[in-house]
Amino acid sequence: MTKRGLFITFEGVEGAGKSTLSLNVSKALQADSIPVTLTREPGGTLLGEKLRLFVLDKDLSGHIKPRAELFLFLAARAQHVEEVIRPRLLEGVTVLCDRFSDSTVAYQGYGRHLGPDYVQNLCDLSTGFLIPDLTFLCDLETEQGFLRTNHRKSKDRIEEEHIEFHKQVRKGFLELSRLHPDRIVILDAMKSAQDLLSQCLVCIDQKRKNYDL
Amino acid sequence: MTKRGLFITFEGVEGAGKSTLSLNVSKALQADSIPVTLTREPGGTLLGEKLRLFVLDKDLSGHIKPRAELFLFLAARAQHVEEVIRPRLLEGVTVLCDRFSDSTVAYQGYGRHLGPDYVQNLCDLSTGFLIPDLTFLCDLETEQGFLRTNHRKSKDRIEEEHIEFHKQVRKGFLELSRLHPDRIVILDAMKSAQDLLSQCLVCIDQKRKNYDL
Repeated sequence: MTKRGLFITFEGVEGAGKSTLSLNVSKALQADSIPVTLTREPGGTLLGEKLRLFVLDKDLSGHIKPRAELFLFLAARAQHVEEVIRPRLLEGVTVLCDRFSDSTVAYQGYGRHLGPDYVQNLCDLSTGFLIPDLTFLCDLETEQGFLRTNHRKSKDRIEEEHIEFHKQVRKGFLELSRLHPDRIVILDAMKSAQDLLSQCLVCIDQKRKNYDL
Repeated sequence: MTKRGLFITFEGVEGAGKSTLSLNVSKALQADSIPVTLTREPGGTLLGEKLRLFVLDKDLSGHIKPRAELFLFLAARAQHVEEVIRPRLLEGVTVLCDRFSDSTVAYQGYGRHLGPDYVQNLCDLSTGFLIPDLTFLCDLETEQGFLRTNHRKSKDRIEEEHIEFHKQVRKGFLELSRLHPDRIVILDAMKSAQDLLSQCLVCIDQKRKNYDL
């Protein structure tokens, strides 16, 4: 494999601060003259943004079976990988992605009870086996995540799920971190933004050295 | 397995007359007091109909990679199977479906060169391994199909594909019929509507006897 950019993902339950953290990491790397692309799922492409609205639309509530929902997320993922992530990585750009396959395994595999192995297999088939070099799991007690998102004016279809669903999702993320300890770094989302950023930068720096980037 | 309805699919290239034939079969079975549901893909559900418009939308032309397109079709399929097909079959209703997994293997596996094995595997994962009892393949020279659809006022994104694409699709369907000779019946789409209907009814009657329906 030729030299390429790092692929770094940010995962976690609702309200864990993934978006803020990924933005802060992006700014810090750019300030360090490292070429970076910050992107998100579902979204990140024209198809993905359209599907994002589609999947989160409350009108379809009750009209999307868990398995169909899974395949919609995988469609957005397949497009995202081929249109954005792989091309940037091959150009040597570090790609930061807000949610990726781990979210699908946690939300659909554990939360929707489709089974983690079934979902992981489909994730791998949809991405052509693209696996992040590093994943930051912003972990938070489910209740804390609820408190943090409660002030948001409107919640989408998935944020409105019952607390038990979100507990299953968190359990899924923690299981994944046990399965992939070398890839997934658990962060305590209750820490300050500055602390979280510093912790991420240390890990990224280490990974860059390992990869001789 | 308890007694259930037959699952019959209609496949073929554009302009081969699947829709007319499936409608005629539906009417004939109903006239014979056999409970029937006639449905189609992509479509057949609220999600499917919305996705049908989404996938065939010319504005997205060039913005949907083959693999993403595949997963969108599989999302519609998963919904269709869980919401319509399986429940009807379990009620003892004969389900006639205009396009199913064979179309996905032919169009995405052969036409889009994603590979038939890769696509067949994903089809099976999206349907929970639901396989038709009987499939009618309306076969037609690709050029004949083009002549038949040329008069249509507006073509969708897939109908507008180059003739080479449609030749690959036809080749795919014929390969599938060689792989599954007991399930797939090849019909000569140049025959009259009445001849095609009669041929289908003979096959269905035989299958019903085999299954003791």
